[in-house]
Amino acid sequence: MMNQPVNFKEKLAKFTERWSPRVVAEMNDYQFKLAKIEGEFIWHAHADTDEAFIVLQGEMTLELRDQSVLLRAGEMYIVPKGIEHRPIALRECSIMLVEPRGVVNTGDAGGVYTAPNDRWV
Amino acid sequence: MMNQPVNFKEKLAKFTERWSPRVVAEMNDYQFKLAKIEGEFIWHAHADTDEAFIVLQGEMTLELRDQSVLLRAGEMYIVPKGIEHRPIALRECSIMLVEPRGVVNTGDAGGVYTAPNDRWV
Repeated sequence: MMNQPVNFKEKLAKFTERWSPRVVAEMNDYQFKLAKIEGEFIWHAHADTDEAFIVLQGEMTLELRDQSVLLRAGEMYIVPKGIEHRPIALRECSIMLVEPRGVVNTGDAGGVYTAPNDRWV
Repeated sequence: MMNQPVNFKEKLAKFTERWSPRVVAEMNDYQFKLAKIEGEFIWHAHADTDEAFIVLQGEMTLELRDQSVLLRAGEMYIVPKGIEHRPIALRECSIMLVEPRGVVNTGDAGGVYTAPNDRWV
């Protein structure tokens, strides 16, 4: 099976749920996931991996314990492993996450925002 | 040292060389690299890793031995490991590559297009 090109806007048009990442591509044991976010997520950390946030549309803030990082469309940020963070978006924002397959969106925190893994769009 | 947000347009304004990827972020043992491409690259493959192409501005074609994949801004494609490919851009195109640290841009082919690694912008 050959890979297909992934068009971010087309993929984003296929779901509406917030905080529910959808896989669009795999590279070795890593996944590229699209997510729509709006509101305040929970504080959490990923003990075993860094996590890449790339903003595609809109803007978001990554709260860290010692600073807040504003990210607009066309910007990215790497949250280092073990670092607590909380994504916030005042208005709907579309992002791409890059991280190893199997990373849970709520990290060590769990709870109602925990989304199933390996859901493709 | 805390990471800094990366703004793709700001980073792209800082270099003009074609086919010379610049690292903008690291995630675990992977790197995010920006590159400006124009013209025809060489056929090559990476025996040990998949490689992610994300188009930021303009458009490019990834020639594979059995098909050509057109990629426009806002689109991505994963070249599976071991698969021969040749990037082509009729006009200047800005892309982001995601791949393990240490991957050489010309893969198994070598030659004059081979760029140094770990050059940050």
